[in-house]
Amino acid sequence: MGLPPGPKAYLVSVGNELLIGKVVNTNAAWLGSRLTNLGYRVEACLVVPDELDLIAWAFATSVERGAKVVVSTGGLGPTFDDKTAEGLARAMGVELVLDERALEMVREKYRGELTESRVKMAKLPKGAKPIPNPVGTAPGVEVEWRRALIFLLPGVPAEVEAMFKSYVEPKLRSLGLLPCGAEVALRVSGVPESVAAPVIRRSLELGGSVYVKSHPKGAELGVPVLELHVTAYDRDRRAAEELAERVASFLERELETLGGRVQRLGGGP
Amino acid sequence: MGLPPGPKAYLVSVGNELLIGKVVNTNAAWLGSRLTNLGYRVEACLVVPDELDLIAWAFATSVERGAKVVVSTGGLGPTFDDKTAEGLARAMGVELVLDERALEMVREKYRGELTESRVKMAKLPKGAKPIPNPVGTAPGVEVEWRRALIFLLPGVPAEVEAMFKSYVEPKLRSLGLLPCGAEVALRVSGVPESVAAPVIRRSLELGGSVYVKSHPKGAELGVPVLELHVTAYDRDRRAAEELAERVASFLERELETLGGRVQRLGGGP
Repeated sequence: MGLPPGPKAYLVSVGNELLIGKVVNTNAAWLGSRLTNLGYRVEACLVVPDELDLIAWAFATSVERGAKVVVSTGGLGPTFDDKTAEGLARAMGVELVLDERALEMVREKYRGELTESRVKMAKLPKGAKPIPNPVGTAPGVEVEWRRALIFLLPGVPAEVEAMFKSYVEPKLRSLGLLPCGAEVALRVSGVPESVAAPVIRRSLELGGSVYVKSHPKGAELGVPVLELHVTAYDRDRRAAEELAERVASFLERELETLGGRVQRLGGGP
Repeated sequence: MGLPPGPKAYLVSVGNELLIGKVVNTNAAWLGSRLTNLGYRVEACLVVPDELDLIAWAFATSVERGAKVVVSTGGLGPTFDDKTAEGLARAMGVELVLDERALEMVREKYRGELTESRVKMAKLPKGAKPIPNPVGTAPGVEVEWRRALIFLLPGVPAEVEAMFKSYVEPKLRSLGLLPCGAEVALRVSGVPESVAAPVIRRSLELGGSVYVKSHPKGAELGVPVLELHVTAYDRDRRAAEELAERVASFLERELETLGGRVQRLGGGP
């Protein structure tokens, strides 16, 4: 069993600060969660530095591997090392061109005072359109390339979240998809992960599109503690909930037989 | 200007929980910082799910792109969805074989009680050796493949840190490398990033292996605040420090001329 079924999404995270460890990649977790809840299979996240060749490689790889949606974060600002739009243009084999709509967005933010660095933020790969940024100054970018929808967002988390919610998510919803997910989480104490493993494997043979992830939480008072997350997918929410419930009940029963104490943690992805 | 010079390192992060956004990838930031300080150029991090094909792809890609060191986290535990060793074996085109040294490590942790799930943790790609885990139960894995040194570590941060410090880092240091880095950080208020950008670009023309990264920190009382991190590399620490200082002084002078207030933040990577 793997990730939820559904069209493939790839994340591209751009920024030296992520690779030298100055910044933790919270954007990828946030976007991964949103896209998963929309029904996408978030198959990989490629983190690359502020370098044209590597940025181009990340977009080309995502699309070659079958991504229907690619969302990048970082590298859209005014400084010399903000290169995401140029990297994407290089991957696509198109020019970077000044976009009048993007320029208007930038002009409004700075009340008309345009400098070379600011104008840079309005240069998009040919064929792309700008995404309004309700929080910061750099517009986002949307472009279709080889049947993939590509969205470039800035790196500041508040901007990522605002632009995803106000623009990317409504756009993806309008495309219509997606299966429904349901989740049940269990806390199990007294059964080591290595003993729970074969029980989990058997629970997946009950059928349906279901996934069980175990998270060892260390030990309390010498007793091992595990969290089990059961995630089920089906056509409608009701069916998904029933499937998750069926697998969770099986786990509860079997792990209690093995001497475990099992507690529900409340569900809902 | 890019990342520090030095041999290429790639990070591979394995786990559905990272892609569905249940867990933030703090391991990548921690490892990126350590490897950068050792003088490696951490060129990319590939985050993939608990699936053999994608795990194999991530290792093969890292090595094909010239990584001298690959460090992975996650997927070494006893459950059916812990597949990192098998994924690496698939990439290398070798069998997964039971390693007696690894089995001994696992046996000690469980005081001799071995089950199929526990024995699984002692199966390594042919030619690999186990890395002791001073904190948890799953041994790590070290193997050389096509001139790259590959280290597989578990996903629990405390185990990653303990095993990197006690095993991986001494091993890498023993290989002998690496240039020295020095850093100066500045806090600039009153100059927008788009105005600072051309000054930063000019500072890089002073010469040497130096990199300036700007982090916009929003605005305080309506005044924009930026942090600038100057990182310089040279043969010895003294030369690296002098270079960082020269670039930082230039930035201070020029940004104050533009009306900015500049403050030192203390350096040292």
